Amino acid sequence: MSALTDKVVLSCALSGVAANRAQCPGIPYTPDEYGEEARRAAEAGASIVHIHARKPDGTPSQDVEDYAAIKAAILKRVPSMIINFSTGAIGFTKEQRIASVPACLPDIAALNMGTMNYAKYSEKRKGFVFKFVFENPFDDIIFYLKTMMEHGVRPEMECFDTGHVGSIHPLIDMGVVKPPYEVSFILGVDGGVPATTQNIIAMMGNLPKDASWQVIGISREQWRLAAAALTLGGNIRVGFEDNFYLPEGTMAKSNGELCARAARLTRDVGREVASIDEARALLSLPLKARAA
Amino acid sequence: MSALTDKVVLSCALSGVAANRAQCPGIPYTPDEYGEEARRAAEAGASIVHIHARKPDGTPSQDVEDYAAIKAAILKRVPSMIINFSTGAIGFTKEQRIASVPACLPDIAALNMGTMNYAKYSEKRKGFVFKFVFENPFDDIIFYLKTMMEHGVRPEMECFDTGHVGSIHPLIDMGVVKPPYEVSFILGVDGGVPATTQNIIAMMGNLPKDASWQVIGISREQWRLAAAALTLGGNIRVGFEDNFYLPEGTMAKSNGELCARAARLTRDVGREVASIDEARALLSLPLKARAA
Amino acid sequence: MSALTDKVVLSCALSGVAANRAQCPGIPYTPDEYGEEARRAAEAGASIVHIHARKPDGTPSQDVEDYAAIKAAILKRVPSMIINFSTGAIGFTKEQRIASVPACLPDIAALNMGTMNYAKYSEKRKGFVFKFVFENPFDDIIFYLKTMMEHGVRPEMECFDTGHVGSIHPLIDMGVVKPPYEVSFILGVDGGVPATTQNIIAMMGNLPKDASWQVIGISREQWRLAAAALTLGGNIRVGFEDNFYLPEGTMAKSNGELCARAARLTRDVGREVASIDEARALLSLPLKARAA
Amino acid sequence: MSALTDKVVLSCALSGVAANRAQCPGIPYTPDEYGEEARRAAEAGASIVHIHARKPDGTPSQDVEDYAAIKAAILKRVPSMIINFSTGAIGFTKEQRIASVPACLPDIAALNMGTMNYAKYSEKRKGFVFKFVFENPFDDIIFYLKTMMEHGVRPEMECFDTGHVGSIHPLIDMGVVKPPYEVSFILGVDGGVPATTQNIIAMMGNLPKDASWQVIGISREQWRLAAAALTLGGNIRVGFEDNFYLPEGTMAKSNGELCARAARLTRDVGREVASIDEARALLSLPLKARAA
Repeated sequence: MSALTDKVVLSCALSGVAANRAQCPGIPYTPDEYGEEARRAAEAGASIVHIHARKPDGTPSQDVEDYAAIKAAILKRVPSMIINFSTGAIGFTKEQRIASVPACLPDIAALNMGTMNYAKYSEKRKGFVFKFVFENPFDDIIFYLKTMMEHGVRPEMECFDTGHVGSIHPLIDMGVVKPPYEVSFILGVDGGVPATTQNIIAMMGNLPKDASWQVIGISREQWRLAAAALTLGGNIRVGFEDNFYLPEGTMAKSNGELCARAARLTRDVGREVASIDEARALLSLPLKARAA
Repeated sequence: MSALTDKVVLSCALSGVAANRAQCPGIPYTPDEYGEEARRAAEAGASIVHIHARKPDGTPSQDVEDYAAIKAAILKRVPSMIINFSTGAIGFTKEQRIASVPACLPDIAALNMGTMNYAKYSEKRKGFVFKFVFENPFDDIIFYLKTMMEHGVRPEMECFDTGHVGSIHPLIDMGVVKPPYEVSFILGVDGGVPATTQNIIAMMGNLPKDASWQVIGISREQWRLAAAALTLGGNIRVGFEDNFYLPEGTMAKSNGELCARAARLTRDVGREVASIDEARALLSLPLKARAA
Repeated sequence: MSALTDKVVLSCALSGVAANRAQCPGIPYTPDEYGEEARRAAEAGASIVHIHARKPDGTPSQDVEDYAAIKAAILKRVPSMIINFSTGAIGFTKEQRIASVPACLPDIAALNMGTMNYAKYSEKRKGFVFKFVFENPFDDIIFYLKTMMEHGVRPEMECFDTGHVGSIHPLIDMGVVKPPYEVSFILGVDGGVPATTQNIIAMMGNLPKDASWQVIGISREQWRLAAAALTLGGNIRVGFEDNFYLPEGTMAKSNGELCARAARLTRDVGREVASIDEARALLSLPLKARAA
Repeated sequence: MSALTDKVVLSCALSGVAANRAQCPGIPYTPDEYGEEARRAAEAGASIVHIHARKPDGTPSQDVEDYAAIKAAILKRVPSMIINFSTGAIGFTKEQRIASVPACLPDIAALNMGTMNYAKYSEKRKGFVFKFVFENPFDDIIFYLKTMMEHGVRPEMECFDTGHVGSIHPLIDMGVVKPPYEVSFILGVDGGVPATTQNIIAMMGNLPKDASWQVIGISREQWRLAAAALTLGGNIRVGFEDNFYLPEGTMAKSNGELCARAARLTRDVGREVASIDEARALLSLPLKARAA
């Protein structure tokens, strides 16, 4: 691996949308809590924070003002942090889900690249904990991509299955998305691609040329998948959205603790954690002049 | 490869549901036409026929009487043929889609194992020819599997993406489906897994132990995918449901012509086409005493 | 696959070095026999002939005059044929093995890229039919490559194992070999990489960027391996050097018969056989002015 | 992964044969130094020690008395340690290389499974640091395997390329080696299989059924390869024979320091280090009554 790709871009998904503090006390609710968690993540090596906004009482929110306040609270503490907004909310219209993107102009905004059965199965209970149809039709995908491209916001194309990676190609061919491409592989959702190193490689094999990619592992298998991604030249994401637990099974106290462990894993595999500046260079995401 | 697996089970999907004779004159409509096409397919090497029923005017049908008439017309001509019914209709209830299975007791019935964006993209037109959400939630999958298992009908689990293969595992763990397992990989639908040899291998890597598998390729890429499956020890399917064209681009006159070419390809790769008896042995599908 | 790579370059290895006419009556001995076999191969679709020279009595030869006579006899019949000389003789010095290359200036010359146990095991006999150490040290490889590069002869780098493909990289880094790169994967020698589609893909994964590659399968598994290569975008080689038998097990009467079957397989997989001109374009091997 | 395979067997190759203390001060020479290094390795999680014997002055040795003294010094400190002897010496006869196996009856003895170009290339120097032909013909392999099997010593079959893994199959078919099979993949030798995760998977794909396997990475890439093996369900080896350096580039002071880091990596990937008893159970290597 060349010098450049030896650097790993570490993302942190600070809060997610489904979990609450009863389940995991470290999850941030208020803008200041988001800011502090982002600071801890950055100190531990993260260069990107992925944000699902919440109201200060913890309720999931797609309101522009909440995204704006969280973004401001983060940048106050880590001025060059790469800001990544989710559009993956449930129970909101497309317009609501994307509203914060043109309004707040994050560096990156994430979108889902496919439709699927989204479930969690428990071997212990011999049954599904939950299961639903996760609808992301091509029309919606095109809507999100166009809005992002028009506003100069980098789309992070989240792929939960091999076919979702394949779905990027017609969108490139139509000119809906333009390089540089940034793709995430999410493994371990039941109904989506199973959580194996071989499946990461299969997804890599369907990427558009010169795409940058990261792996997002769900639950404790995150650590094994992150290690696999590191050996394959990819970037990684951790954070309370994906997993609460350190590899040994104890709940992390903060996103910083998860990031510190991911950074240690990165170094123990023989690679290095990219600084925010290095991550911006690797992903072609120059720091824009930002409004106060 | 051992002597046994050198034999290839050739399936023929006689008619499909979407296309009509204006597009492809060889498609059967009446029971007798199904019967004649099945005969031609069997003479060319097919041991399984996969059936979407139609009314004698060509309209797609889920009526038990149509399935029964088609089955009878086929067995009159090829008494030991392995009969495989589709349940993959659109615009029908679950109950309608499965009704022919307990009523007619085919050897095999096919079901879809996942939800996805189902589309066809045209590079020439720079746009989608069609695109829709293809919903097959876990509850429906469980419903179909249970009905089939209760009636001793082998489920053919049709997987359009890697995650659909992974979705078999919780169903096995819950006891909803029991061995022997039969799995189809359908490649080349936009929104589903792209049509490459590498992706067949990726899907194989997620199979349950000892599963039998075949590849179904959509459109002319069928031939390349069939060749790949043959080199990997799998079985293959051709027929007007999947593709009208011979590899050189001319439209086939009959399912028999498609099967003859698939059989030639099988032999040219160094394998042999299984007889119906051999296919029944390979798939553990003994010929049941059949009502007159 | 793009229009360009849909064209398959078909090579024919006319005679090999080990076998004789007692084993396979179609093997050419005299220059005219080589010429006639090349003509048959070309008529059936081959654009490259790979040559191990022989004396007119069939004895293996590394003499320049034999290579020159065979080349002339071929070009008399197929003036634009792509000529490929072997250097893989046993019982000759390096200098003898390469002598025909500067003297006759074939378009391509093949060399072995690694050292290995080279054996043939028989399951029936429960023992090795033969086994020896096949020595191709880096010093020899460098010697052959340098000689070829100096004379403008394209090296065909023959790889019998994954590590042989990896061995190309230091040679590129040292500047010993320059693009365009042409690589052959030979599968199925005991001691070398086993004959599977997955192993072809593994070898592809270790290729230098933009390399052109073909698969050479030994014995009857050739057909399965050729099919696999065709589905993966590669080129293929057949001919009496590698295999005497058609896929159904009957001995071929001529190299033309083997090529005709390879061409049929190519078309049945949905690709097309490149003409000699197309092959020259694909491999960047312009037809040089040739001495009378 | 099941509970059982979550346990990782950690091997430590204490000294190797080529390096000396001028290069790496931690390398053991005397039996007591071997014993202390084995103790440190065991305390850090290793359950197997792989031994190339030396004279007390550091000279490589194949003398039975040196192997016996080293074995005794280790067992005095770690009585249940799994003892693994090398037979991979250069400059000794086959008989000398194997002599310690029947004499000392280690639990395991390692042998090389193929012939290859064995080299080390330096991009910095644009040249080879060393290169030689590493001869391990089938006859030698058979000789070593037979001697080990006769004495109830488990062979560790060391594979430096994909074809070496394939070479196990004829030996199984002839009955020369019997299950349980233990296979090592050594990646990163120039001339052998390149050091990638994909190549580990390719080698896995050629294993005999139910083989246990580990990855041995050469030089600092060891850490990346070990991480890859951990994500794929394999075991790992570290130690001064393979690599002197911690992932961050500082030289390790002892084998214990390397093992501690490997154990940390194992846990950070979400797996656990097997105790010696667990390793014996996993590898079916019961503790034999040992002579005083």
